[in-house]
Amino acid sequence: MSNAQRKPLILITNDDGIQAKGIQALARAMAPHGRVVVVAPDRAQSGMGHAVTINGILKMEQVTFGVPEVEAAWQTTGTPVDCVKLAIYEILGQKPDLLLSGINHGSNASINVIYSGTMSAAVEGAVEGIPSIGFSLLNHAPDADFAACASYVEQLSLEVLNRSLPLGTCLNVNFPDLPTEELKGLKICRQSAGYWEDAFDKRTSPGGTPYYWMTGKFTNPDQGQDTDEWALRNGYVSVVPTQFDLTAHHAISTLNQWNL
Amino acid sequence: MSNAQRKPLILITNDDGIQAKGIQALARAMAPHGRVVVVAPDRAQSGMGHAVTINGILKMEQVTFGVPEVEAAWQTTGTPVDCVKLAIYEILGQKPDLLLSGINHGSNASINVIYSGTMSAAVEGAVEGIPSIGFSLLNHAPDADFAACASYVEQLSLEVLNRSLPLGTCLNVNFPDLPTEELKGLKICRQSAGYWEDAFDKRTSPGGTPYYWMTGKFTNPDQGQDTDEWALRNGYVSVVPTQFDLTAHHAISTLNQWNL
Repeated sequence: MSNAQRKPLILITNDDGIQAKGIQALARAMAPHGRVVVVAPDRAQSGMGHAVTINGILKMEQVTFGVPEVEAAWQTTGTPVDCVKLAIYEILGQKPDLLLSGINHGSNASINVIYSGTMSAAVEGAVEGIPSIGFSLLNHAPDADFAACASYVEQLSLEVLNRSLPLGTCLNVNFPDLPTEELKGLKICRQSAGYWEDAFDKRTSPGGTPYYWMTGKFTNPDQGQDTDEWALRNGYVSVVPTQFDLTAHHAISTLNQWNL
Repeated sequence: MSNAQRKPLILITNDDGIQAKGIQALARAMAPHGRVVVVAPDRAQSGMGHAVTINGILKMEQVTFGVPEVEAAWQTTGTPVDCVKLAIYEILGQKPDLLLSGINHGSNASINVIYSGTMSAAVEGAVEGIPSIGFSLLNHAPDADFAACASYVEQLSLEVLNRSLPLGTCLNVNFPDLPTEELKGLKICRQSAGYWEDAFDKRTSPGGTPYYWMTGKFTNPDQGQDTDEWALRNGYVSVVPTQFDLTAHHAISTLNQWNL
């Protein structure tokens, strides 16, 4: 087997769409470390959670990607989770050695993990038994600066390639929006118990029909210093091991006492 | 306060759309027990997971519902999670005493919980601190028979109204497709470690463009008798306490040993 063939196969996806700056930063950081294939949505799919396309069709096409070192790039009409499934079962015909998602433009810390297409792609990777990491930067801007993320992306990805991850888990990695010299390093955390106080901006169409934009304010009463929110506020890159077993195991004994 | 005002406020939603037979069965079962308000998608939203509409607008309108005892029914252009948010913050202007989602046409046991719009609505209820239950019947047919579900829906819903649920949890309830006399009762379970072996059915459009339908086969190597899949195969109604804290707490100590 040649050296080229022994290089790890790295699948990269995101939810901001294949044109986003964040996925290009991720592919650029990892291109020297493996055979990188990009399979990503053809447009922004933020907030898609773990949606899959089961009542409609999917299309995909190979495209030119901004980072010439990648082996191939495909855009699909699907969600981030669709992209993972299409990549494994149609494009690669095998499971990659590593799945990376992002770098997301905006936080996926705390409760954002359940709404996030970026993280759902990583969770889907974990379901498939692939070592998987979702990366996000706490800056929503299309032209956000991902420069400080690159060395951490490389370090963590190579470590995960080397050691794999505990069964059934992936990593949710968030970067504070700080320059390299102000980042204090990686911190393993739990998901903070924050939530969104939702609100709707009600407007009226030119034709007189009311419509709504979802807005809201992130609220975090969780003061724990072991949380992702604490880490990010204090200059650390937060790393939360994230699982797809949603069972509240601690609640089973309580419910068994109900005598249903 | 009048008796009418003291009746619990029950929000009902689903992911099969407001016209589905399952949501009508759920509303009919609960109408005698409270003030039932239905807020559901205007069309099928299966497989939408925890998707929310953040890059587009939402519309909603009050509609006539097949169960005249319900206090009000609204259809929205949004996902199941959008429906929960619109119901609380725009329609009800308060949190309901109970949130019920379903009855889904098809299983949401095992890994299906992460793809399910039905269960994502219940999880969103838990995030909002509302006692919430998602119900599903193991029959995909539009005309599935939900008759055997009604007494269990009532029993469990009234129990949850009475006792509430452990903080941060909701219930994922699945019914085997059996007549009443063959159901063996409720069983508290954990989520089985099953998964989908995906496949894509590749076709070609009249214009010559390839497109894909997602298909797949559910596979479950998990032989545990404490799982939802075991319960359902053995005639029990499975009840899995389900949480939105995705932290793999058991993996934190492992990762801390990596010395990152």
